Amino acid sequence: MFRLIKQEGCARRGEFTTVHGTIQTPVFMNVGTSAAIKGGVSSLDLKNELKTQVELCNTYHLHVRPGDEVVYKMGGLHKFMNWDKPILTDSGGFQVFSLAKLRRIKEEGVYFNSHVDGRKIFMGPEESMQIQSHLASTIAMAFDECVENPAEYNYSRKSCERTTRWLKRCIAEMKRLNSLEDTINKDQLLFAINQGCTYDDLRIEHMKVIREEEYCAGFAIGGLAVGEPTDVMYHVIEQVEPFMPKDKPRYLMGVGTPSNIIEAVARGIDFFDCVMPSRNARHGTMFTWNGIVHIANRRFETDSRPVDPQCDCPCCRNFTRAYVRHLFKSEEQLGGRLAVMHNLYFYNTLTERIREALDEGRFAEFRAEYSAKLAQRLPDEL
Amino acid sequence: MFRLIKQEGCARRGEFTTVHGTIQTPVFMNVGTSAAIKGGVSSLDLKNELKTQVELCNTYHLHVRPGDEVVYKMGGLHKFMNWDKPILTDSGGFQVFSLAKLRRIKEEGVYFNSHVDGRKIFMGPEESMQIQSHLASTIAMAFDECVENPAEYNYSRKSCERTTRWLKRCIAEMKRLNSLEDTINKDQLLFAINQGCTYDDLRIEHMKVIREEEYCAGFAIGGLAVGEPTDVMYHVIEQVEPFMPKDKPRYLMGVGTPSNIIEAVARGIDFFDCVMPSRNARHGTMFTWNGIVHIANRRFETDSRPVDPQCDCPCCRNFTRAYVRHLFKSEEQLGGRLAVMHNLYFYNTLTERIREALDEGRFAEFRAEYSAKLAQRLPDEL
Repeated sequence: MFRLIKQEGCARRGEFTTVHGTIQTPVFMNVGTSAAIKGGVSSLDLKNELKTQVELCNTYHLHVRPGDEVVYKMGGLHKFMNWDKPILTDSGGFQVFSLAKLRRIKEEGVYFNSHVDGRKIFMGPEESMQIQSHLASTIAMAFDECVENPAEYNYSRKSCERTTRWLKRCIAEMKRLNSLEDTINKDQLLFAINQGCTYDDLRIEHMKVIREEEYCAGFAIGGLAVGEPTDVMYHVIEQVEPFMPKDKPRYLMGVGTPSNIIEAVARGIDFFDCVMPSRNARHGTMFTWNGIVHIANRRFETDSRPVDPQCDCPCCRNFTRAYVRHLFKSEEQLGGRLAVMHNLYFYNTLTERIREALDEGRFAEFRAEYSAKLAQRLPDEL
Repeated sequence: MFRLIKQEGCARRGEFTTVHGTIQTPVFMNVGTSAAIKGGVSSLDLKNELKTQVELCNTYHLHVRPGDEVVYKMGGLHKFMNWDKPILTDSGGFQVFSLAKLRRIKEEGVYFNSHVDGRKIFMGPEESMQIQSHLASTIAMAFDECVENPAEYNYSRKSCERTTRWLKRCIAEMKRLNSLEDTINKDQLLFAINQGCTYDDLRIEHMKVIREEEYCAGFAIGGLAVGEPTDVMYHVIEQVEPFMPKDKPRYLMGVGTPSNIIEAVARGIDFFDCVMPSRNARHGTMFTWNGIVHIANRRFETDSRPVDPQCDCPCCRNFTRAYVRHLFKSEEQLGGRLAVMHNLYFYNTLTERIREALDEGRFAEFRAEYSAKLAQRLPDEL
């Protein structure tokens, strides 16, 4: 299912075949939280304009609204959004721990109140699998506890152990669901999630335990990019990576900046997702091959160049910096849409260029050229 | 320049040739107030997906932000928005009278404060022409006073006389501007505006006076659709129309519902514009060939049909009622974008079907079938 095509150091060029098509890795998944990309971007834009390979949707949000029963009745997320390529759904765990109110964590799962209407909800491993089965995503994520950072060592250890027990329940439940007649996607895949906060021994021990679960089609590193320094994040990846199966994809959840992605690829990661390109875009922060641009800046008032002259996205092919700036200053939604499209195209092109570099054995060179550059603010003269 | 192709009663099928292309009439112009359609719709969408013939932009808004000097430096509105078909700009008058604060009307023009930053602005006929020349629209509108409704008879009469004097100054100024070397569009056209509130004699007298201005390429009826009953609006059109030149297009400003458009075509109108399709769309009110739909309604929760099964717009071709409803309930901007595209497509198709009916001599039949139907709420079973 996962084919490792090439390696350069720890960096991996691969492809992952699913029932909804083959994913070329490294890949950046585009986040459509509530079955829609923020900023008015549709699945047609993703497909026709933005080179998106995988759309990521949020189990918690869709369970709350419109309800996974509704999505199930509509034939699953693919039909609902009109998207025929792979979809990854998260487990709901992260949102339960970051958004929901009044939560109580028990062995059976988590009791919490909806952030929308306060309604009481229970979600455990079985419920998460059932919801994701209703959503009929290509890849489902195991239900885990994402502990706060920093967290006490002892709490983190106990939480890891519970996450392991929950993983086993997720596997059992998904096996059952995938065998049912009226399940939409009987080929739904499960990725397990490594936890352990920033404690090397917990991270490694947890990874060693969960990698034994042969049923899992991939392994994610969760609980990072939650406020810890970047160096700490890289350190954790370096600690865990040697213990991750070579023959399955690795997914670094919720990461990150273009530079983070290049650095994590260099450390052996294959899958990424992050709200950064769409969230930043909506505030006028745009990524270019020469660094970061704040497009609402006065200096772009009569700038007739595209946001990024090197970019072929729908925004850069058709509109000037001056126009995009005007849209942001006038609070026209079109500004956000163009910027979101640009940033998603940038991220999708970034991973495409990483793949090309890996194919051609020059990833180290690519990394040296771009890892720092992409994090800088666009110099005035560019 | 305007060619009358066919008539059926007062209804006219024509075409109006401009330096930016030929406009088939009757036509509905799509409103892009600040050089952008609300709801994240770009000029590319208008051109490639929505069958838009003319985009309308607002002189007042663009003067305030980004400033007409900026648009001029960027090569005019066509280049700024990346739109190569006709553009009509209003005169700024209507917004000065409806949006601006602390306005004082003098013979020379209007002193007012910007609604954005309170900055003092003066706009008279010459300033309006200069701004519109900077914007380089295809068709500029004369600077008029749009009196409130109801208005005193005597005030309305004096206002009409001033609007006539302002028209003469607009003509003189546009002639001068179109002769300048550095004017972007030296073929800019001027439409005059008929006023007179709801007083038949003032309306008719004013029309008789302004039609003598041969320089004007078209004539508009202004000051309607500002709160008066629909019957009063139709009555005013019927009074004024016999005195409008037959060989020039007639534009009913700011109108209206699909039914209003059919009825106004039946009374001899050729050009329309209205924010209704985009504004209503953003609140989930969508027009269909069977009547009006409030798409956020609970009854569409699992409705797998397109919003309008008879419609070929990007929304109806690709998404279900259930999905569009979900987007509105989740406050996803994509909902607004799809609904705006649908409604603009509906209005543009409505005028297209009116033209076809006129071409085939069956406009009376079309009017009988649709004028009332399009104003009704969509019956439950459709």
